[in-house]
Amino acid sequence: MQVLVLNSGSSSLKFQLFSMPEKTILCSGLIERIGFNDAKFKFKTDTETIEVIEAIPDHKFGLELLSKQLLNKDTGIIKTANAIDIVGHRVVHGGKHFSNTTEITKAVKEKIKALSSLAPLHNPANLEGIEVAEAIFSNAKQVAVFDTAFHQTIPEHAYKYAIPNRFLEEHHIRLYGFHGTSHKYVSEKAIDFLGTEHSKIITIHLGNGCSMTAIKNGKSIDHSLGFSPVNGLIMGTRSGDIDQSIIFHIAKKFNYSLDEINSLLQKESGMLGLTGFSDLRDIQAEAEKGNKACQLALHMNAYRIKKYIGSYAAIMNGLDAIVFTAGIGENSIEMRERICNELDYLGILLDKNKNDIRPDKLTDVSAKNSKVTVLIIPTNEELEIAKQSVALFKN
Amino acid sequence: MQVLVLNSGSSSLKFQLFSMPEKTILCSGLIERIGFNDAKFKFKTDTETIEVIEAIPDHKFGLELLSKQLLNKDTGIIKTANAIDIVGHRVVHGGKHFSNTTEITKAVKEKIKALSSLAPLHNPANLEGIEVAEAIFSNAKQVAVFDTAFHQTIPEHAYKYAIPNRFLEEHHIRLYGFHGTSHKYVSEKAIDFLGTEHSKIITIHLGNGCSMTAIKNGKSIDHSLGFSPVNGLIMGTRSGDIDQSIIFHIAKKFNYSLDEINSLLQKESGMLGLTGFSDLRDIQAEAEKGNKACQLALHMNAYRIKKYIGSYAAIMNGLDAIVFTAGIGENSIEMRERICNELDYLGILLDKNKNDIRPDKLTDVSAKNSKVTVLIIPTNEELEIAKQSVALFKN
Repeated sequence: MQVLVLNSGSSSLKFQLFSMPEKTILCSGLIERIGFNDAKFKFKTDTETIEVIEAIPDHKFGLELLSKQLLNKDTGIIKTANAIDIVGHRVVHGGKHFSNTTEITKAVKEKIKALSSLAPLHNPANLEGIEVAEAIFSNAKQVAVFDTAFHQTIPEHAYKYAIPNRFLEEHHIRLYGFHGTSHKYVSEKAIDFLGTEHSKIITIHLGNGCSMTAIKNGKSIDHSLGFSPVNGLIMGTRSGDIDQSIIFHIAKKFNYSLDEINSLLQKESGMLGLTGFSDLRDIQAEAEKGNKACQLALHMNAYRIKKYIGSYAAIMNGLDAIVFTAGIGENSIEMRERICNELDYLGILLDKNKNDIRPDKLTDVSAKNSKVTVLIIPTNEELEIAKQSVALFKN
Repeated sequence: MQVLVLNSGSSSLKFQLFSMPEKTILCSGLIERIGFNDAKFKFKTDTETIEVIEAIPDHKFGLELLSKQLLNKDTGIIKTANAIDIVGHRVVHGGKHFSNTTEITKAVKEKIKALSSLAPLHNPANLEGIEVAEAIFSNAKQVAVFDTAFHQTIPEHAYKYAIPNRFLEEHHIRLYGFHGTSHKYVSEKAIDFLGTEHSKIITIHLGNGCSMTAIKNGKSIDHSLGFSPVNGLIMGTRSGDIDQSIIFHIAKKFNYSLDEINSLLQKESGMLGLTGFSDLRDIQAEAEKGNKACQLALHMNAYRIKKYIGSYAAIMNGLDAIVFTAGIGENSIEMRERICNELDYLGILLDKNKNDIRPDKLTDVSAKNSKVTVLIIPTNEELEIAKQSVALFKN
């Protein structure tokens, strides 16, 4: 069975084609700068990589390009568009409607569209990907896998904000949580490793976006991103948690518009605002050379993660494992060391030698006498989407 | 030595007259609704309580009323205005200038005025109180005790926000922390009780405003209120922490002005927004009668405090004591029980029998086998201000 996974952003389209249930990747790639004359189409198989720069006016054009490449006689993968059995779509915001992966119907599309007011940057792009895929892969089943779904188990006392009730009841303003596909994927691996679902786990997803989840007995019970994916941890360009009164102060004192402040907090803040760099590798290299701003930013970043670890250990009243995942979590030996440093009161002891690794599979880096298991687990959101899409039709 | 302590709000003036160093309260009271025709003047001594309702147009008029009452032949306390040796003023915002209690000079007043942009509701009122007191008690030394001073030891990685550096460097936007006089007072009592300054303490001030401080070796190292006193814990009418993106969403979707949203988050949120009540005693009574919104709000409130306890235990990598103080912290048996429930992973075990108390002095309510000492310590910000004011002239 061939499952195409699409992750459609506002100006990009990531794809991966799996043969399931073997989980073999037949091809993968990315279309960037959709809407521009110098858009980039990258297509990769086991044996070759194709890169083309050309005008790609919209998602439809991009997906048609992908379809043509898939069907290319020489370098293609499939014989007809009908060879694709399922297209699994990443959809960022499922609101309160979707706590599970869902086959896409007209009603589902309408709900995704209605949720655009909660995720104005993401849901419209996701929906466009769905509609184009329906047209091109018309025989395939279309499936939506929601970033928010895994967090639908978060209880009301954790997802509700202390603002007047009408904002939740009538306008659905609450904590939704994001990166759910990744947190679900790695927490299930961790549970397998621990050998019991009766566990208290904190998953730490550190990539471009960063978030943490408290997972009790396999269920998400709290999460660091809230109503939209901007608060919580310090990210590449996003501020994470701030005192909200700063917004009113900046607006009044500097006469910034709300859009300007929103953009400031999303695109000019985080590690970029603190250091001038948004890529952690640059920041680590600069810090090593003695750049004080970079040293401080790394410290702040790890410090905030420590605080979330502590708060989640408190609400679960215990901790069996912490899991590092995503680009930084899997690859930054230094960040893992900074985070785990001096957390033995919570039972966390890292083995620095074991931690000196960028693994391609689950790796236990706890010290022998650590009460809490410290794991690195490479995430694979695309595979998780493919798995969930296939599972949907098994029942 | 007679020390008058003044806490001047935008429309109120609290006062307490001490004989020092004996710490005897000679009189205390409150002027409310300054600026109105039905303002209220309340004056209390050991033997009598005087309440007058009359027009009090401004702080000057109010303080003159107090001075007249102090000097009243029958019910007064002092013979001449010169009998007051020191007036100690609570000043909310000392910015980065004031890490200690300071004698008020012209330069100090200018700095307090300049800091009004950071505390527009508080500093101008504090300054007005100072200027009126200087005129009336012209022979007394005038002293400023800053709410923020105790938190000046918070390190940069904890006080800095992940927004572009210029906002800190040029515009002083950072975490300042508040309720410092209270946190200092009770933490010193706790350190005395523990018998060592080498300690890791969390002080939990739960009153109208609510805040928590992580105190390592006697020094504040992190705090739940930030740039202004609105974030962190859920308060009577203040939201505490929210995802900042909610502000942009509400502004766009409901066409609220920034002032309206600010007011919403400060005056209509918190326990009031969740339950319709802002007084915890009402909420507890309603919850007991089965009011679900009240039950949930109490749960949310305690849940968030638990999270801060965990995060501060993490950054201190240990915990020797937690301290409950202020109106709710000292008097709500139920809140203390909710907060301490299921925190034994952090070493916290409350003795429920001992906790069944509203003490007027330091009380240890830990269970025998609790690793962490759980204390109730009545706060006394006025006495702390008097003590610090006197101490200033001892050196």
